[in-house]
Amino acid sequence: MELTHLDAAGRARMVAVEEKPETLREAAAFGAVRVRPETLRLIAAGDMPKGDVLAVARVAGIMAAKETPRLVPLCHPVRLTSVAVDFMLNEAASRVEITARVKAMDRTGAEMEALTAVAVAALTLYDMVKAVDREAVIQEIRLEYKAGGKSGVYRRGGA
Amino acid sequence: MELTHLDAAGRARMVAVEEKPETLREAAAFGAVRVRPETLRLIAAGDMPKGDVLAVARVAGIMAAKETPRLVPLCHPVRLTSVAVDFMLNEAASRVEITARVKAMDRTGAEMEALTAVAVAALTLYDMVKAVDREAVIQEIRLEYKAGGKSGVYRRGGA
Amino acid sequence: MELTHLDAAGRARMVAVEEKPETLREAAAFGAVRVRPETLRLIAAGDMPKGDVLAVARVAGIMAAKETPRLVPLCHPVRLTSVAVDFMLNEAASRVEITARVKAMDRTGAEMEALTAVAVAALTLYDMVKAVDREAVIQEIRLEYKAGGKSGVYRRGGA
Amino acid sequence: MELTHLDAAGRARMVAVEEKPETLREAAAFGAVRVRPETLRLIAAGDMPKGDVLAVARVAGIMAAKETPRLVPLCHPVRLTSVAVDFMLNEAASRVEITARVKAMDRTGAEMEALTAVAVAALTLYDMVKAVDREAVIQEIRLEYKAGGKSGVYRRGGA
Amino acid sequence: MELTHLDAAGRARMVAVEEKPETLREAAAFGAVRVRPETLRLIAAGDMPKGDVLAVARVAGIMAAKETPRLVPLCHPVRLTSVAVDFMLNEAASRVEITARVKAMDRTGAEMEALTAVAVAALTLYDMVKAVDREAVIQEIRLEYKAGGKSGVYRRGGA
Amino acid sequence: MELTHLDAAGRARMVAVEEKPETLREAAAFGAVRVRPETLRLIAAGDMPKGDVLAVARVAGIMAAKETPRLVPLCHPVRLTSVAVDFMLNEAASRVEITARVKAMDRTGAEMEALTAVAVAALTLYDMVKAVDREAVIQEIRLEYKAGGKSGVYRRGGA
Repeated sequence: MELTHLDAAGRARMVAVEEKPETLREAAAFGAVRVRPETLRLIAAGDMPKGDVLAVARVAGIMAAKETPRLVPLCHPVRLTSVAVDFMLNEAASRVEITARVKAMDRTGAEMEALTAVAVAALTLYDMVKAVDREAVIQEIRLEYKAGGKSGVYRRGGA
Repeated sequence: MELTHLDAAGRARMVAVEEKPETLREAAAFGAVRVRPETLRLIAAGDMPKGDVLAVARVAGIMAAKETPRLVPLCHPVRLTSVAVDFMLNEAASRVEITARVKAMDRTGAEMEALTAVAVAALTLYDMVKAVDREAVIQEIRLEYKAGGKSGVYRRGGA
Repeated sequence: MELTHLDAAGRARMVAVEEKPETLREAAAFGAVRVRPETLRLIAAGDMPKGDVLAVARVAGIMAAKETPRLVPLCHPVRLTSVAVDFMLNEAASRVEITARVKAMDRTGAEMEALTAVAVAALTLYDMVKAVDREAVIQEIRLEYKAGGKSGVYRRGGA
Repeated sequence: MELTHLDAAGRARMVAVEEKPETLREAAAFGAVRVRPETLRLIAAGDMPKGDVLAVARVAGIMAAKETPRLVPLCHPVRLTSVAVDFMLNEAASRVEITARVKAMDRTGAEMEALTAVAVAALTLYDMVKAVDREAVIQEIRLEYKAGGKSGVYRRGGA
Repeated sequence: MELTHLDAAGRARMVAVEEKPETLREAAAFGAVRVRPETLRLIAAGDMPKGDVLAVARVAGIMAAKETPRLVPLCHPVRLTSVAVDFMLNEAASRVEITARVKAMDRTGAEMEALTAVAVAALTLYDMVKAVDREAVIQEIRLEYKAGGKSGVYRRGGA
Repeated sequence: MELTHLDAAGRARMVAVEEKPETLREAAAFGAVRVRPETLRLIAAGDMPKGDVLAVARVAGIMAAKETPRLVPLCHPVRLTSVAVDFMLNEAASRVEITARVKAMDRTGAEMEALTAVAVAALTLYDMVKAVDREAVIQEIRLEYKAGGKSGVYRRGGA
């Protein structure tokens, strides 16, 4: 087994995908920002009528999905066809849970786009709470679901 | 207590910093990518003489620090004066640990730059191992240290 | 009737277009920068042999068309196949009139690319005249023509 | 009188500002998106509790202010210290009115940043309503206020 | 014979390619950075086990290939499917030789992507050696090979 | 002697400049695009009254100067205060000669900005002539002049 992004001499490269067919690719990623209960209440309050907290993080995540090939050096440009970013305020765990779902028509998967959307939405939330909660932590950014390539459907935990 | 990035009506804004003095700002952030032991060995091997794995992730992190105000909507442009990104292969925890340290001469802190460097370095590592390890998870992106603003020195855990 | 860019809960998203066929999309947009007659003469003079005024604005408009998905948060990346930006010095109205025409092969329309090209060409003209004409105003940025999607051909004014 | 962005031979350049002192610069710009009354009601509804319409346009405007030197070819990079974008739904005129206010500590003014924020917020609103209102028009993007350079305070209309 | 990027009136434009078929496009470009022999030894040393010199330049070149349409005003966005950048330390000529190979599935060629990768890899090498070798010069950036369009295969020197 | 952009372990970093004073930095760079005599005549013709050839390359160079820290991984963001790009059609050598002059107020030099402006102006010229002259070559991109840092004034050839 070897890392696909290195050639035989260990040199980084953008992996060749020109031989692959263009198919519908889907991916979903998850992440969370753990905050203090007091901060979670501020986020909830800041998202009340006309409050922008989660909308700002959502826009940041959607835009970041489009920036993925400019951030992650060996990623291909991918033709995204849909992106959605959602949040759930989990009071029990005192954290904001983030899910990004993306679709693309391309020769390579879109999981990096989903993960990047989650990471940047999390950074944006962190930015907005950092003045009141320096202990905030971004947690568990991971792939949840992937479909559309030759490797078939992947679902975390085999669920 | 309220979120500084929202005005009284809950509208997002870039916080006014023009009244603050320009001082040296420092920040350090931490994060990790948990992988399978087998993957950690591949990363170590892929970074052997002339292998590029960690160098690619390092460059991605450094470049991402410079992209922070373009990714995180309410961040100010910051005058970075130094950026370093380092990795430690933690075999016991089977993860790559990432630290970013940044300095800037500006009116606002540079913690988002450090955190963004860590997040994008982590995404880049994920991208390089994802073909061999879909269970990889980005963990615990957090501020470790901050100095230079009126709020004084911060060190996680009060250490 | 409802806004397509919001889901049922009012959350912004990038609209799903993966089911749409890839077809040739065309769009033309119009806009104008109203200036003082004296300024219009300077622009005409500044575009005389080897003068760069309109060329700079044209390049800015063409490049901005390519930046559209990075500026307009919910826009899809679109495969542009041609972009042209033209100017007409309208002395009667004392304004520079701008037209952008774009074509793309994609699943979604290219009107935002045409409008963005016009807007940035207009901002660029404004930038070049602002030292001599602070009263300059960008006027009437609007779609003129659109073809290629399932909604058929659109022409402003039914012309 | 001549255009400052052209040299004596008519060649475009970024104007030299190194001799100018760094001072606080302020600018405010205005623009509007004229829509059908029915569309204005959808925008108002789309911005009800948890609706994201205006928040998306606001974020787009704030981010675009930071992109100004990358869009307008001869603009200097400017150190923005605050940016705010606001909307007013003007039912009488059936349009969304946009105001952007920016501040910067720099050697050159920030009016292009304010105007660019307005233009991109307007394009973003247009993008969200275009499926229901093709006749929407972006109107009257103009400078309202400017302070901080050697040319003193400017206020449109001499008000 | 005329320049394809200008219309009949001499105005710049992005050339229309919508009528062309989408095919596999390949291009290879070459360039070099001439340095002092002492500098070449430092580069070789700086790339010893775990040294990052060439890896940094390689990543910069790969990322620049993706930035081409944002740098070169009249370039189309191109769907890159693979990018590789390699270096050869030529002691006889006292220079680092750079080769970039790219592939794309598109309606237009990818030679600008290969040339841009070489140019930015060269600038990056220059940046890393400039403190020790101000006489470094970037030399002979040129197309070596091109295939996939209607003009057939091109190989420099007819080789 | 060692490469300043690598730490003692050979790891790339953005060099720390926070201790340096902010001073006026100047740099000039040179480069050329060698073309066939016939192509040089087309460029001259394409730049006749209202022709855009050199204006497009000039704008591309100026904009690229501002993009330098996003292209060259270890470059600091620099506060550019002026940028000019000029061309000379050298018939004897059958090439277009490019000069870029930049100034900045910063803690680090601006030579990479000048070199990047030249490189991208050269790539843009290449792009415009490539359909008629595949043998075009970008030649001799080099620093001509540098002033403002502690290392004093540099002038190529000691001139």
